[in-house]
Amino acid sequence: MQKQIKLINRPQGTPTNNDFEIVNLPIGEATEGEVLLRTLYISVDPYLRGRMNDTKSYIPPFKLNEAISSGVVAQVVESKSLLFNKGDVVLGSLPWQEYSVANEKAVRLIDHSIAPASAYLSVLGMTGLTAYFGLLDIGKPKEGETVVVSGAAGAVGSIVGQIAKIKGAHVVGIAGSEEKVKFLIDELGFDAAINYKTQDVAKALSEACPNGIDVYFENVGGEISDAVFPLLNNFARIPVCGAISSYNNEQADVGPRVQGHLIKTSSLMQGFTVGHYSSRFSDGAKDLAIWLKEGKLKYEETITEGFEHTIDAFLDLFQGSNLGKALVKVAEIETETSAVE
Amino acid sequence: MQKQIKLINRPQGTPTNNDFEIVNLPIGEATEGEVLLRTLYISVDPYLRGRMNDTKSYIPPFKLNEAISSGVVAQVVESKSLLFNKGDVVLGSLPWQEYSVANEKAVRLIDHSIAPASAYLSVLGMTGLTAYFGLLDIGKPKEGETVVVSGAAGAVGSIVGQIAKIKGAHVVGIAGSEEKVKFLIDELGFDAAINYKTQDVAKALSEACPNGIDVYFENVGGEISDAVFPLLNNFARIPVCGAISSYNNEQADVGPRVQGHLIKTSSLMQGFTVGHYSSRFSDGAKDLAIWLKEGKLKYEETITEGFEHTIDAFLDLFQGSNLGKALVKVAEIETETSAVE
Repeated sequence: MQKQIKLINRPQGTPTNNDFEIVNLPIGEATEGEVLLRTLYISVDPYLRGRMNDTKSYIPPFKLNEAISSGVVAQVVESKSLLFNKGDVVLGSLPWQEYSVANEKAVRLIDHSIAPASAYLSVLGMTGLTAYFGLLDIGKPKEGETVVVSGAAGAVGSIVGQIAKIKGAHVVGIAGSEEKVKFLIDELGFDAAINYKTQDVAKALSEACPNGIDVYFENVGGEISDAVFPLLNNFARIPVCGAISSYNNEQADVGPRVQGHLIKTSSLMQGFTVGHYSSRFSDGAKDLAIWLKEGKLKYEETITEGFEHTIDAFLDLFQGSNLGKALVKVAEIETETSAVE
Repeated sequence: MQKQIKLINRPQGTPTNNDFEIVNLPIGEATEGEVLLRTLYISVDPYLRGRMNDTKSYIPPFKLNEAISSGVVAQVVESKSLLFNKGDVVLGSLPWQEYSVANEKAVRLIDHSIAPASAYLSVLGMTGLTAYFGLLDIGKPKEGETVVVSGAAGAVGSIVGQIAKIKGAHVVGIAGSEEKVKFLIDELGFDAAINYKTQDVAKALSEACPNGIDVYFENVGGEISDAVFPLLNNFARIPVCGAISSYNNEQADVGPRVQGHLIKTSSLMQGFTVGHYSSRFSDGAKDLAIWLKEGKLKYEETITEGFEHTIDAFLDLFQGSNLGKALVKVAEIETETSAVE
């Protein structure tokens, strides 16, 4: 038997443990064209909150009383596919289970000799690609411009700021603790960072951005973002990636309307989902891997150990406690040697 | 002597007559490279309200105790320029005066044999070009898509809706009276129109847009626009041209934040100013003139007679009383015959 995590209630406001259930079920068997996989790492992401509501969005909602799914790195335990061998490490969108049976087309091989397997759920995965395409395709930072990123110490934000530095921008991060502020400046090379919990964001931003703001990479929404709009330069660009501050709102999220700022500055604000760039994923992944190898890109992971703590790791996202990408480690990779032993 | 209109106070909230003064001053004389002009038509526009505040925007604020200026059609009374002859009708950004002396480079000749001179301040002028570039460059309506325009019976909105029809879209207008609603449907060929003063905009919009909204041309902001966001289709485009509902606000304009909608639908929202498209004005003007000639584009003007009523015509904009372009007629064109007489 193995464990699975189901959604049993549509959360009202902030999700709680009561919205989920851990159940036991048989491991299952692979048939022709399928592989049996052992889960190694599970990605927990803020956007999953949206899928827990029964509302139209860019991906369908999770069904009640079925398993949650997200990005998962797993290892092939048994292969009935010509494409995979036992021991291969693969990536796919898979259910929150200790083991899964997947069609060979639903997963792809990853090379964990270039980077640890977990990196394919963070800097080399959807997270890194989200930062890459949102910043470069919509934000289009030019050398010397000022880029502000909210949720800056988070999975996407920490990569956004570093890519902006690679492109020669003046980079300012907004985050929620002194530890994160220090991390952004000392470890990731941000030019400035603001602690929104202790500082007056509007004042701190105007000091950190003496030349105004050309790109604002939006991860959080809410009051933090409100402070950005009055500082926009002409032709500013705002990739809208997330609005985590509002995901658990039960009431309408209300704030200053943005139209006036957009008109005054001829600025652009664009929502996006990394999936739209799928035809260019390999280009993005190549650049990210090069920057990683060259040491220009660092990444941080907050890894929770144990399948049974997956829900906690997800709930922690809304406390802002993670630094970099939040992952759950379910099992160790078995090397061929260890598998043989 | 002639009359001039000065800004004497920065309006607090809605402007009043007390913010302006009509003064007398000498007519002036043209020197080398200049023309003396008699004002024929003055354009009164909502965006002028923004220039009455002392705040940074895409054009500098008006100075206190100096003349207001805007688009003006005028006739050459005396020419000290090789480029213009007496009797020529020209267009320029000129002060609110009965006569102006202008450098030959500050005005351009218009051909009032193709369309009445006033049309160069409306459908063939900045108004038409604003509709043209905002809709086609940012909105990019495709055949069969749904285009919603607010301020639909106004100067820009009425042109936007007709261009959207030319492009094969399903067009829905939002306006503020039964007369305007009737005008949009019966005269301009809109598919539907909503009276925001008597109808529940959210409900009426969802009925008028059974396939959702692909393009929202934003002229008004505020609660009317709030109703649009929940109906956006994936990859919707929102050219943000104006937000007249907020121009006279003394307090922050507050409403539902838009980030969540933009993310869910991967939509784009972009502020713009027609000036950015100046290198392509001749292309736009050509298309507009062709559509006008072909009878595909109609235009309406609300003309106030008499220079001394210019301020009233401007203040009326914020009452929503104009249908189509609001203009002030200051003087008749003198034809060569009448000039000779």
